[in-house]
Amino acid sequence: MDDFEVSCKGIYRALSIREKYMRQAFQRFPLTTSQYLRDIEGEPFKPEDSVQPAKCLSVFTSPPKKGEDPFNTKCLPENVKWVARMKNGVIYVYKDATAADQHKPMEELAIPDYETFIDDMNFLIALIAQGPTKTYTHRRLKFLMSKFNVHEMLNEMEEMKELKMNPHRDFYNCRKVDTHIHAAACMNQKHLLRFIKKSYQVDADRVVQKVKGKDVTMKELFANLNLHPYDLTVDSLDVHAGRQTFQRFDKFNAKYNPVGASELRDLYMKTENHIDGEYFARIIKEVASDLEDARYQYAEPRLSIYGCNPNEWTKLSGWFNMHRVFSPQLKWMIQVPRIYDIFRGRNFVPHFGKMLENIFLPVFQATIEPHAHPELSIFLKHVTGFDSVDDESKHSGHMFSTKSPKPEEWDIVKNPSYTYYIYYMYANITMINQLRKQRGMNTFQFRPHCGEAGAVTHLLAAFMTADNISHGLNLKKSPVLQYLYFLAQIPIAMSPLSNNSLFLEYAKNPLLEFLKKGLIVSLSTDDPMQFHYTKEPLMEEYAIAAQVFKLSTCDMCEISRNSVLQSGLSNEEKIHFLGADYLKEGPEGNDIRKTNVAQIRMAYRYETLCYELNLIKEENKISTKLFYLLKLMPLPWLISK
Amino acid sequence: MDDFEVSCKGIYRALSIREKYMRQAFQRFPLTTSQYLRDIEGEPFKPEDSVQPAKCLSVFTSPPKKGEDPFNTKCLPENVKWVARMKNGVIYVYKDATAADQHKPMEELAIPDYETFIDDMNFLIALIAQGPTKTYTHRRLKFLMSKFNVHEMLNEMEEMKELKMNPHRDFYNCRKVDTHIHAAACMNQKHLLRFIKKSYQVDADRVVQKVKGKDVTMKELFANLNLHPYDLTVDSLDVHAGRQTFQRFDKFNAKYNPVGASELRDLYMKTENHIDGEYFARIIKEVASDLEDARYQYAEPRLSIYGCNPNEWTKLSGWFNMHRVFSPQLKWMIQVPRIYDIFRGRNFVPHFGKMLENIFLPVFQATIEPHAHPELSIFLKHVTGFDSVDDESKHSGHMFSTKSPKPEEWDIVKNPSYTYYIYYMYANITMINQLRKQRGMNTFQFRPHCGEAGAVTHLLAAFMTADNISHGLNLKKSPVLQYLYFLAQIPIAMSPLSNNSLFLEYAKNPLLEFLKKGLIVSLSTDDPMQFHYTKEPLMEEYAIAAQVFKLSTCDMCEISRNSVLQSGLSNEEKIHFLGADYLKEGPEGNDIRKTNVAQIRMAYRYETLCYELNLIKEENKISTKLFYLLKLMPLPWLISK
Repeated sequence: MDDFEVSCKGIYRALSIREKYMRQAFQRFPLTTSQYLRDIEGEPFKPEDSVQPAKCLSVFTSPPKKGEDPFNTKCLPENVKWVARMKNGVIYVYKDATAADQHKPMEELAIPDYETFIDDMNFLIALIAQGPTKTYTHRRLKFLMSKFNVHEMLNEMEEMKELKMNPHRDFYNCRKVDTHIHAAACMNQKHLLRFIKKSYQVDADRVVQKVKGKDVTMKELFANLNLHPYDLTVDSLDVHAGRQTFQRFDKFNAKYNPVGASELRDLYMKTENHIDGEYFARIIKEVASDLEDARYQYAEPRLSIYGCNPNEWTKLSGWFNMHRVFSPQLKWMIQVPRIYDIFRGRNFVPHFGKMLENIFLPVFQATIEPHAHPELSIFLKHVTGFDSVDDESKHSGHMFSTKSPKPEEWDIVKNPSYTYYIYYMYANITMINQLRKQRGMNTFQFRPHCGEAGAVTHLLAAFMTADNISHGLNLKKSPVLQYLYFLAQIPIAMSPLSNNSLFLEYAKNPLLEFLKKGLIVSLSTDDPMQFHYTKEPLMEEYAIAAQVFKLSTCDMCEISRNSVLQSGLSNEEKIHFLGADYLKEGPEGNDIRKTNVAQIRMAYRYETLCYELNLIKEENKISTKLFYLLKLMPLPWLISK
Repeated sequence: MDDFEVSCKGIYRALSIREKYMRQAFQRFPLTTSQYLRDIEGEPFKPEDSVQPAKCLSVFTSPPKKGEDPFNTKCLPENVKWVARMKNGVIYVYKDATAADQHKPMEELAIPDYETFIDDMNFLIALIAQGPTKTYTHRRLKFLMSKFNVHEMLNEMEEMKELKMNPHRDFYNCRKVDTHIHAAACMNQKHLLRFIKKSYQVDADRVVQKVKGKDVTMKELFANLNLHPYDLTVDSLDVHAGRQTFQRFDKFNAKYNPVGASELRDLYMKTENHIDGEYFARIIKEVASDLEDARYQYAEPRLSIYGCNPNEWTKLSGWFNMHRVFSPQLKWMIQVPRIYDIFRGRNFVPHFGKMLENIFLPVFQATIEPHAHPELSIFLKHVTGFDSVDDESKHSGHMFSTKSPKPEEWDIVKNPSYTYYIYYMYANITMINQLRKQRGMNTFQFRPHCGEAGAVTHLLAAFMTADNISHGLNLKKSPVLQYLYFLAQIPIAMSPLSNNSLFLEYAKNPLLEFLKKGLIVSLSTDDPMQFHYTKEPLMEEYAIAAQVFKLSTCDMCEISRNSVLQSGLSNEEKIHFLGADYLKEGPEGNDIRKTNVAQIRMAYRYETLCYELNLIKEENKISTKLFYLLKLMPLPWLISK
């Protein structure tokens, strides 16, 4: 085989691998790419396939209809008598306890195969290091870049003309979703400061803490910290990332503590404390109300589940229901910090399997018996996905392989590798999704932080398992993965301002490069409290990108459209924001009246994707033909041809 | 003389030149620098000189006291019977008509000497091209840069500590002034769009234009343009600078026309039209009201006087009084476009002298007889300075010299050079200021656009004549001028976002470099309508600078403080915003409780300036001594010493 053939075969297989894992977990894989894969396999193209079949898609809860209460537990599905139990780090569902004892999982639910996963992963690890594939993808990416530059020179004014002719819609009133934001830092620093001062004015004598059985009022709490909220300023609050945080994830994490005091973080930014997370709920609701006022902005805040003990879900969903933390502008996500090593070190959990069980079993139980866990069931209705978070630059010695200990055997203090975490999260989310689909409930997407720092293998693991990712900076370092992310159109929530404070200077951010090449990028704030200055952090993020990268209106609206597509907004909302055909790929999926993205741009994107996929297809087909030809024909014939 | 000596003598003389022209026009020159100059001249340092004598300072009108009407004409000074008349492009004041006929100007008023000015200018032109001085200043600037970097590494945390200890004050509530903003583009694009739609809803049937004697209603106006405001979007409004405007000042100017229609510019962004500039006044008042809400932000909008005919001032001040366009957040400036060539080409003016007369004579007349021009006199009370504006990149063949035609003789269609404009504006402003000082009225500062593009001689002209400038980008190109701007502490209102769209990419903007070296930079928006995205353009400007340049809080607060110092805010306001001693130089002039600038930073700035001035002083002194020594002593003695 020549180099070109090697690469195209490898890329074909890589795409097939992702397609398999996506289908299994009801996550997205582009239809266009699927069609080319089928074509390579010799399966005919069916016109009815031009829309993604509903059974393959993830399902998100629609916003409540007028007068409907989002916290109403009456509409929950019936309880069933199935049993969920963990085995080898993955939770299986059984018809009953006997089946569970015999480990005979329900046949309706497909099970991710661990051995195959490792095989697939090893294939991809080899592929991204393979010389010919690296050359090929590098060249294709360079070509994509130049092609876009040419497109821009030729069609920029035409695109602008389309947008000018488009009434009622401009960048300001096309929908944008903050696709990556942490709830604990979703307010800006000034907002937090104001909230603290206001709360003290009203609640100074309120008991806000219990220390060794003794009640501590807010007044006492602040007195113990030797400060008075009246004197507080943004400077002394000190929650903003600065030059000191660059390449220092630890310092960045410490900035979450107002005035450096974890007591204040507990009081204002936690769901679980002496006041039942009331302040935190109020701050979030204020942020949501600002978004409602802005009208065209949405956000997907992350709340933490640590896996430290099995009650976490009960407490979190209790908080959610008690304070009625619901807003049509917010779609919730669960973030799981990769800090098993800390919990194990303090003996909070006996092994990694227990952590996984704490994270996932309650979700299975609430799915099987919603009425036994009404608050959690309601909360899960509003959750759209799982995130995996922590400092990616931390090195882990462990190599995920068939020899890796199973989670229940992982009882050492050392943290498992990123890939290990990712696999077990993916496997459990897949199981949950199949179960919930079966039960007619909403499903979850896996949307980990990935490629912010650390090894490129993180991006490889996410390529296999994640619907979409946050950051993706390190795609810079692997042309093969970058090209695969392009072909598979994997959405990437980028936060250049966050990167600028932590890992990569603004001007060096690959956002513009990725956008030009046709990767699906969106803009997100990550932590407004730490990184932003103005009252509208998402607009600040867009404005700075527009200025520094000189984005056109069409670029900005394309990014906004990407953000809606990437998000966990429901089908109804996406239809409303993007148009009835948003699931179709290419220009026919775009409704310019709603998105303000020029059809010329959409056509360019679609043609470009098809062109690249076609190259892979043709080479795969030719090489298949050649294989037979070579057997039948003498070589000179081929050459003269 | 050796190289070092040559440079230091040159720099000494350059500073003396600026000092002279500043004193004459009641513009600022730093006391510290003055003291070193006196020291070189052998004059003793007097401790009472540590505060700028009030008689040297420009005077701005204080904000109205509670209940006081800023439009009250009763408090205007009495009329006097003096006569103002132009001669050789400069307006002189005479005791009476006879004195005027004999050209015997009032003795109390010093007169700028044209010949000396040309001499001084030629000296400076030679100096900035002089090899040794270029080397010396280049080295000093490099040293200043490295010194600041060291300061930052050593003291950054100490500065931050000071700010954290400073109660009630942080970046958000320290005062900032938008030191450079054009009234016609002071709203953002979204604001203008909303205003147009709203005005149409209310006023569709209002007559807004008269074309060939026929009334045109707003409905008809829009119908003629083939558009309906209801369909308008930010895109079709098309007033935002984009990639197309880079290096294209003409395209940038064209963007001032909404939907490309000058009719709409006339209707919404002009003081003079069929509706007496009502909409423009309302838009500005809305912007002012937003600033009042933001509380800590001020702006210095520019209104145009073209010099095309002598009624312009009457009309402009009529508009100002009729619509009561006053806000404590706004300090007004007059911008004079350098477009004599256009007016002359259309035969609107017979020669350049007439243009100058149209611009300045009404101001003299209102100063002499306030009660004869009550509206203009009231307006002038609220005007703080003159700006000179246009595309600096346009080349002008003319070299300003003693051979240049006098303004009254300049009757060709060609535009005079930048320096020619600047000199005559300076000379007339100087005369006005002396007259107004004499009469106990507020004075004006000369604050031209300078160094945005074009020749470095522009910056040289401003060094001689301007209190402070806007842009200053081209100081990059002349180390001598850059160093002189540092030693003379000339404020520079920088607008990196404007530059990014017009002349220089953001990352290449010298703002950070200038700040580090100790030049007095402030941040300004220039044209929010064209350049900004958010509701708070000035905050957007600060936020982007903070992010891209990684400014610390102390940096940002220093810039804010600079902006207040640079501005035309009155003495009372400056005392309120910066502290009672703000006129003192060095750390004692800083009140951290009001400015949030660390004293360590202030001390660093002061010591650094003194160190550089001292180098000049010592070399000037030594060389004077050496001169005598060399006459008395044999050379070997000197060498062994």
